[in-house]
This record gives sequence, C-alpha cells and structure tokens, in this order.
Amino acid sequence: MLDLRSSKKRSLRPIWLDDKQDTVKIIDQRLLPHKLVIVDLKTVDDVITAIKDMYVRGAPLIGVTAAYGVYLCVLSLLKNPAGDDFIISECDRIKSTRPTAINLAWATDRVLKKVLSSTGIQGKILAARDEAGTITEEEVKNCRDIGIHGLEIIEKISRNKKNNTVNILTHCNAGWLACIEYGTATAPIYAAHEIGLDVHVWVDETRPLNQGARLTAWELGKRGVKHTIITDNAGGHLMQNGMVDIVIVGTDRTTYKGDVANKIGTYLKALAAKDNNIPFYVALPSSTFDWDTGTIKDMPIELRNPDEVRFVQGLDSDLIKSVLIAPKESPAANFAFDVTPSRLVTGFITERGICNAADISKLFPEKI
Amino acid sequence: MLDLRSSKKRSLRPIWLDDKQDTVKIIDQRLLPHKLVIVDLKTVDDVITAIKDMYVRGAPLIGVTAAYGVYLCVLSLLKNPAGDDFIISECDRIKSTRPTAINLAWATDRVLKKVLSSTGIQGKILAARDEAGTITEEEVKNCRDIGIHGLEIIEKISRNKKNNTVNILTHCNAGWLACIEYGTATAPIYAAHEIGLDVHVWVDETRPLNQGARLTAWELGKRGVKHTIITDNAGGHLMQNGMVDIVIVGTDRTTYKGDVANKIGTYLKALAAKDNNIPFYVALPSSTFDWDTGTIKDMPIELRNPDEVRFVQGLDSDLIKSVLIAPKESPAANFAFDVTPSRLVTGFITERGICNAADISKLFPEKI
Repeated sequence: MLDLRSSKKRSLRPIWLDDKQDTVKIIDQRLLPHKLVIVDLKTVDDVITAIKDMYVRGAPLIGVTAAYGVYLCVLSLLKNPAGDDFIISECDRIKSTRPTAINLAWATDRVLKKVLSSTGIQGKILAARDEAGTITEEEVKNCRDIGIHGLEIIEKISRNKKNNTVNILTHCNAGWLACIEYGTATAPIYAAHEIGLDVHVWVDETRPLNQGARLTAWELGKRGVKHTIITDNAGGHLMQNGMVDIVIVGTDRTTYKGDVANKIGTYLKALAAKDNNIPFYVALPSSTFDWDTGTIKDMPIELRNPDEVRFVQGLDSDLIKSVLIAPKESPAANFAFDVTPSRLVTGFITERGICNAADISKLFPEKI
Repeated sequence: MLDLRSSKKRSLRPIWLDDKQDTVKIIDQRLLPHKLVIVDLKTVDDVITAIKDMYVRGAPLIGVTAAYGVYLCVLSLLKNPAGDDFIISECDRIKSTRPTAINLAWATDRVLKKVLSSTGIQGKILAARDEAGTITEEEVKNCRDIGIHGLEIIEKISRNKKNNTVNILTHCNAGWLACIEYGTATAPIYAAHEIGLDVHVWVDETRPLNQGARLTAWELGKRGVKHTIITDNAGGHLMQNGMVDIVIVGTDRTTYKGDVANKIGTYLKALAAKDNNIPFYVALPSSTFDWDTGTIKDMPIELRNPDEVRFVQGLDSDLIKSVLIAPKESPAANFAFDVTPSRLVTGFITERGICNAADISKLFPEKI
C-alpha cells in the first residue's frame, strides 16, 4: 500500500490537544496565509466561537473540533460539577453553531454517547478524550485512504494524456486544514504529487471568504504542488478550452442518494464539467454522508453575515485589513453553500473506494 | 412610446466632450463607488491608457472612447501636421488596446472612414467630432430602444407572478456607465422601475474587478432600484431555489450566430439558467455584433494582469487600498471573458427588437 507521507514529513495539524491535556490548540484559519496564529480553546464557548466565526472550518475539522468541545465540557465538570442534562444541553449548543456540515452533529453525538455511557467524572473525561482522539485518527486514516483510491483516477488520466500535466480544478479548501491531514479533495492530488505525477491545480478563489486563494493555495505551495489561483468565474472557460482534466471537490454534507452540499459555487462548476464532459468527483469520508436525508430540499443551507461579501480581507503592507468593495448603502446576501444534484457527480471518492450515487448504500450497507 | 427618462432627470454620462472641444472628459470607473473622479483625456496616449487600464470599460463606452480618440488624434494635427498614414497607424494603436470588445474596432474604423474621406485638417476635425458624436447619440438611442423592448419581457413575467417582485440576475456592469445612458442589460430594468413595476436585482459582484459590486450596485442604488449584491458563486443556488425569474447580461462581442463573449463567469450563469428553466437574455446594440465571426473558437479572449486576481481594491477608512488576498508566492491567471454558446441564450434584446440566435441575421439583414 502506498505510504502517502512518511512520519518525518508530518507537518502541523489544524487541531491538537496540548501536553497538559486541558487546552485544545487550533490554527486560526481566518488569518492564513498572511499570519500563522495558534489559538487556545479552553471552554465550550471558545469552541463555539471558533466554529461559528470560522477560526476552524471544513466538515471533518468542524467535527473534530466539536468532539474536543464535548471533552472540554466534561473537563469543566471538575471545577463545576453538573449532571448529564448539562452535558447534553452543552452538546446542543455545540451542534447549533453551524447548520450545514453534518460532521458537527455526528462527532458531537458520538462523543456524547461515550460520555453518557461512562460513569464518574474521571471516567467521562477519559471516554471523551479517547473518543475525540479516535475520531481524529479515523479522519486521518479516511483521508489517507481517499488519497489512495483517488490516485487511481489521476493515474489513469495521466496515462491517457501520455504523462502530460494533469489539470485538476478544485473549489474552496478541502485540504489538510479542513481535515487534519491529507485533506479530502486534495488527498489524491498530494498522493499523485508524491509519486511524481505531473499535476497542476486550478484553485478557485472561493468568495466570499477566499478559502481557495488563502488556504488551498497556501497548502499546495507549502508542498510544492503546482497551482494557479483563478476567480470563481473562470472555471467554465477553462473547461470549455480543454484546460481542466478533472474536478475534485469536498463536501459539507452529502445525502445517501448522492446530492452534495458544498461551498457555494460548487454547483456551477459541476454544471460546467457536465457540459464539457469532464469528470466531476466529490471526495469525502463516511462521516460526511447524511444517512437520514435523501432529498435536496431538506438540506439546511447556512445564510451568513452579508459583510463577508461586502468586505474583503487581505494584506496591506504587512497588516491584515478588510476593505469595503461595494457602495456603503448596498445590501448583500451571503448564502454559504449550494447543493449539487447527484446527476452531475461522476463519482464519490470515499475511504472504502469510489462509487456513483446509486451505489453509495452498497459501499456502506451498515449505514442504511 | 415610453419616455424612459425625462430630460430633467438626465444625469452624468461616463464620457463627454468639454465646452472648448479639445478635451474628452471621462469618469475614472476604477475608483467607483468610493470616489467620483473626472479625468481629462487630451491625447491618443491618454485614450489608450484609459481603455487599457479600464478607467472606461463596457463595449459601447469603449467604442465611444475610441471614437473620441480618433478625434483627438486628428485634432493633434493642428500642432503636429501629419498625413493619413499617421492617422491610420494611430487608429491601429487604439484598436489594439483590448481584444474582445468589438465596438472598439467598429467605432474607430467608422470615424477613421469619415476622416479619410474628408479634406483639410479642419474638415477632418469636424468629420471626426461629428461622427464620434453621432456614434454616442446612436448608442444612447439604441440603449433606450433596448429598454423599451426588454421591458415587455419583464412586464410579462410580472403579470405571470401576479405583480409580485420580479427578480432579475445580472453579471458585471452593463449599465449606463458602460453605455452612455440607460445601459444595455439595465435598460429594461430601469424602464420597469420607472413605470412602477416591482423589480429586484441580484448583482453578481463580478470578480476580479468587481464591476457588479462597485458599478452596477452604485448605479441601481442611485436610481432607487432594489438590489442585493451576491458573490459570483451564488447565482446557481438562487436559481435552484426559485429566487431568480430572469437573467439579463450585456456582451462585449456576439457572433452573428449568437455566441456571446461577455465578462468571465457569464457562461456559468447561462448553464445554471438552462438547468433551471430560467430565461437567459443578452441585451446588446447592433454595434456589439461581430458580423464576420461565426464560431466561438475565433473569439479573442483577453488575458489580463494576474495581480487583478491576487489583489482586491476597496475602501479602508476613506482610503482606497488594494489588499493581497493570496500567498505572496502563488501565481494567478486572469481570463477576462468567456463565451456562452447560443444554445444557452433564450433571446437577444436589440434596438430592433428581440430575437433568438437563428434570427439575428433576419433582424439585421443588411449586415450579413
């Protein structure tokens, strides 16, 4: 099996528990790529702020952060003892921070279940810490396996192109910053790069918060992967002109029927891929499937602060500033996600392999 | 016939000849909506800079600016006499400033033809000034007529919605700033607003240069037209959810077979409109048709400075600043236009009426 990355190369993760085991450390992703700032989370409120205000983002990382939120909640019982009702209500607060990423509720409930079935504060603390750690390492392994499976697709394209550059378009950031290690959409790209395939990534800037231009470009640059930032408007033109071989994106929630909620704008790229016969893949761990919701209409789409649209953050002489791009009086709307219908998706790259929409339930029979 | 705007309401134009007739005045559109700065163009070089660096933009306005560029060239002969060869070579310089907007060559050649057929410097000067003025007023009339024809479409939608709000999505700026008065895509909107129809415009911000968020929002706000700025990523989601009744865009060049070059990202909106059975209209004067080019592949697409993608301009405490949004080392690409194939266009709104792609040549039989 391909060893995607040796332990020596192990780089920073976006979240970890500090040595004293009482503080969760995260990268404040709002400031990247301009500043790499580590923030301490010590309370459930800290965790809620970090998720809601997008210090952390990306479905798997939101899940892991929530899991450690439950741990911090239980840890707080040492100073302020309370019963299971309190833990459950704190978990409800954590789960209500953002509506779309399903990993949030999934991870919170998974840790909560372990806590509720453990006895004594110390027992509950250990259970929470272990489960949060287990979820973290599972997500790492999932992403690694997504990379291994997705690599096959890129290798095939490379062979068909006689080893010319494989051009991959991605939207938003579904890299290790979103997923602990490897990433989802980026895992096959990193795998291809590591075995020496010639890959180049078109990075959608991903307005309003520019996760592509800020985070994906930064990640790829750090690993030496060739990439070019483009506006979100450009992908269709590139696809029309034979400059994209494959689109790979992540997702915040995908129904078991294969409808994909992902960062706003994903649907437009899926339409363009379909119109130009370009394969459109969604990379995700099983934790991002919604095993209850089959239909697009039931998918909760987050509406965020319009000022994220009206202002753009960037670097001005080493200072991070937000500049107003629009008339002061003009209103804006900020829909954070859209839903790409399954008919536009060529395949799903999961930790268990690749499947089309109809076969998701066959790949995960125990979930249905 | 509908009087779209009384003379009393006549507002600023984006270009005019000053009273002394030796200076062309333009609005520096790079600074809007934050600052309204008028710039003097006195030489062909000034005109070239204004077009290339996008002080002025939008196909009809580029044409009119070029027309006045020929006038300034001929005017310069008073101080520096030269022959027709010089005028022709200066016109070639003007025509090579930007490749996609066809009005540029069309207007330059139209004035040049009048100049070459006139005798004496004073005769050439008068011929150039008159022809530039004629082109300007023709474009105003064209846009007014586009408004009258396009209004019928909006009125019909309004009737079908039982006078509920008609939601119109537009991309980039095809307003009066791009077209002297009324605009192309905005002309039907202004007409609908003036007769009291309840219209609301979704304004694509239009990265990289944000002509939507900066210019269209400013224009609509000044006229009191309800509007909301959205990211370029959002339109597909809005269309999926019944929040868009019609898309109207302008164009920089449309082939006589109906393929539409317009600001990058237009194609993605056309795909989404098609996927959701939403009418997608292109509003243009006959000066924007390319009567020679039938195929998409021959359409010249401008590649601009990548820093227009890497940096975003906006207001920071009353100062206009450009902030870097990406890692310093990451490259970017800046394709300025894309081509929407005719199969995705419901209709073309021209000064002579509305037609589909197949009937363009029937509406303008003398051009083919």
